[in-house]
Amino acid sequence: MSDPLRLGIAGLGTVGVGIVRIVQKHGDLLAARAGRPIVITAVSARSQKDRGVDLSGYAWEDDPVALAARDDVDVVIEVMGGHEGPAKHTTEAALAAGKDVVSANKALLAIHGQALAEAAEATGRVIRFEAAVAGGIPVVKSLIEGLAGNEITRVLGVMNGSCNYILTRMEDAGLTYAEVFEEANQLGYLEADPELDVGGIDAGHKLALLAAIAFGTQVDFSGVALEGIGAVTIEDIRQAADMGYRIKLLGVAQMTGRGLEQRMSPCLVPATSPLAQLQGGTNMVVLEGDAVGQIVLRGAGAGEGPTASAIMADVMDLARGTRYATFGQPAHTLRRARAATAAIPAPYYLRLQLLDKPGALAKVAAALGDAGVSIDRMRQYDHHDTAAPVLIVTHKTTRSALDEALARFTQTGVVTTAPVAIRIEAV
Amino acid sequence: MSDPLRLGIAGLGTVGVGIVRIVQKHGDLLAARAGRPIVITAVSARSQKDRGVDLSGYAWEDDPVALAARDDVDVVIEVMGGHEGPAKHTTEAALAAGKDVVSANKALLAIHGQALAEAAEATGRVIRFEAAVAGGIPVVKSLIEGLAGNEITRVLGVMNGSCNYILTRMEDAGLTYAEVFEEANQLGYLEADPELDVGGIDAGHKLALLAAIAFGTQVDFSGVALEGIGAVTIEDIRQAADMGYRIKLLGVAQMTGRGLEQRMSPCLVPATSPLAQLQGGTNMVVLEGDAVGQIVLRGAGAGEGPTASAIMADVMDLARGTRYATFGQPAHTLRRARAATAAIPAPYYLRLQLLDKPGALAKVAAALGDAGVSIDRMRQYDHHDTAAPVLIVTHKTTRSALDEALARFTQTGVVTTAPVAIRIEAV
Repeated sequence: MSDPLRLGIAGLGTVGVGIVRIVQKHGDLLAARAGRPIVITAVSARSQKDRGVDLSGYAWEDDPVALAARDDVDVVIEVMGGHEGPAKHTTEAALAAGKDVVSANKALLAIHGQALAEAAEATGRVIRFEAAVAGGIPVVKSLIEGLAGNEITRVLGVMNGSCNYILTRMEDAGLTYAEVFEEANQLGYLEADPELDVGGIDAGHKLALLAAIAFGTQVDFSGVALEGIGAVTIEDIRQAADMGYRIKLLGVAQMTGRGLEQRMSPCLVPATSPLAQLQGGTNMVVLEGDAVGQIVLRGAGAGEGPTASAIMADVMDLARGTRYATFGQPAHTLRRARAATAAIPAPYYLRLQLLDKPGALAKVAAALGDAGVSIDRMRQYDHHDTAAPVLIVTHKTTRSALDEALARFTQTGVVTTAPVAIRIEAV
Repeated sequence: MSDPLRLGIAGLGTVGVGIVRIVQKHGDLLAARAGRPIVITAVSARSQKDRGVDLSGYAWEDDPVALAARDDVDVVIEVMGGHEGPAKHTTEAALAAGKDVVSANKALLAIHGQALAEAAEATGRVIRFEAAVAGGIPVVKSLIEGLAGNEITRVLGVMNGSCNYILTRMEDAGLTYAEVFEEANQLGYLEADPELDVGGIDAGHKLALLAAIAFGTQVDFSGVALEGIGAVTIEDIRQAADMGYRIKLLGVAQMTGRGLEQRMSPCLVPATSPLAQLQGGTNMVVLEGDAVGQIVLRGAGAGEGPTASAIMADVMDLARGTRYATFGQPAHTLRRARAATAAIPAPYYLRLQLLDKPGALAKVAAALGDAGVSIDRMRQYDHHDTAAPVLIVTHKTTRSALDEALARFTQTGVVTTAPVAIRIEAV
């Protein structure tokens, strides 16, 4: 049996402790599979409080940057979080000291991924980040390795469990966004800054990482068109369901003739699609390739066990000698993609409030027609006041044509409130 | 850029041609990702007929064993099929000649996997077989690598698209098994020997391969309790649906206190589970680990593109330098597992025909009680003759207790035909 692989863990929150638990519990299993022992030699965290695991056998470092440079550490596991400060310094220090890095830090990699990948390349080290995307689901591995023979045509998915919890809970319990947001916050389901979740930022980081792998491009979080779930109403959830759809916070990355389109926004998906059936905090990623067709991966998107499992997958790969470039191909070969927005036509769901008087519907239909948007289905439904709610599902249209139609609506004089427009993603 | 990785393809059926297409179409993409060119140097098949791809740049070998020994081949791709004869000889010859092998051959590996893994180990070569299980879904990779930090607790799934097509088509069209079997056969959905599909043998091979990886055991196809779908009736599909279940040909592997249980048989699964929602020829594998929880993987289980995609995933791994033992740990460390059957209690669905006379139901209930089987739900439904159909869902019971109850049924004198008993798998 070969030399042990020696881990230094920077960060002893939920995930760090989860890694310690796995290494301590499954030492024999890991060694049998890797052909060498996996050992922890040093750990680092802000305080030496009791975390319910025995850390006495490991060296302690107050400073994670010092941990990253230790001679008795082969792989630095960065599970502190944050896209600047200690996490960034530790990762850079580890690479500079000739260590491989295993990271759960989606924000750091989404923002500084290209520079870090180049730093790793310069020192012949690797950065692995399975745990940064969709928790325990081996999605980074599936994309870089499992689909390596494919031209990737689209990557999409539900990548934030908290948002999916909020949306499914609104539907199941008939509660408003504000009510469920409060509930989720109380239950500790949201980040300290909830906007990271409900604003789509956290999921956007994950999407940017997958897009870089899928399309061989430099990771570009700033190119993600972000829209959170704060404006989703129970009314739209219900009406969408009636029309055969569910609303999900959906990330979609696709290479278009006009550049790389990355969107993280509420979308309607057909109720029969696997994405629509996703309940609660689970994540689902759909990978589409020209040879493989469509692959769907589903599992827990967060939590101690799933995230530690993903970290250990990367550790075991390193122990077995698997090494490749951070985003699946050398950092210097990754192209800088032009960011495209709304390049891909789609059908849209529209909800309008119309003045309840003759000819109102005709004016709306005309506005759509004048903008070049054609109607697939239209429905006026029960109401009890002077405004008549109308639902429209359009045929496939460009976003610019739709925006023109929305502008024309206000000129009709019959649309009483701002229309709701939600993209329908085919999947 | 490093030396090219040189492939020799043994077999030019659908999959072999699919590999040629990918290598020819995506040469630049593959080289960028692998850091070296992927080239085909030699091919072998039974006849030199036109296959719609240009093979003129490759050396031709009539004999795949000769191809396996060529100096200009680094990796032998075995896509001929068959668990004896040329496929076996070619694989053995390749290993003996110091070549790595990438195989789509589930039968060969399920039956001779241990000996082949030992042969690979003896020569320091590797055998990879992603394409042998569930087509394009990266399930072997997910299990060996993605979940390498987990103790695997259960592996299950729908692994034969033809059977799933037959079962969902029976339900959707209200046709009998015989009718849909004929239809599927006409459409070319079944193997030349259909029993490989509908008898569960092909899916059983896949299950045996996954079980060996999951539990660190020597692959043991003979230990798979096999039951095909030939006895599934439209009546049971309908009644199960009414009770909230769907019938699937389900493979389940689980380590028990009494040994390794491997089953491939029709099962009821809750209609809300992802497995139940699987339509047509798609495959789905569920992996359960102590840290990661449940991971669900779904995709096309067969076909040129998906299978060739899986082959290329293994090729790309080899090109990148990824190397590990055939079943994820050294062949000599794989344990010989005792085969356990029916070790894990489960609820069962029972359908009986009773004489339509007073006390009949009480006798059946008593027979169950005497055998120690308790009833969760029981329903007698509409009928138009002298026999009354009765559905029973039991609470969790052992198979032996259930078998005793079935034996007691015949002694009651009121059960007119052989009872149907189908296991309900929680998932």
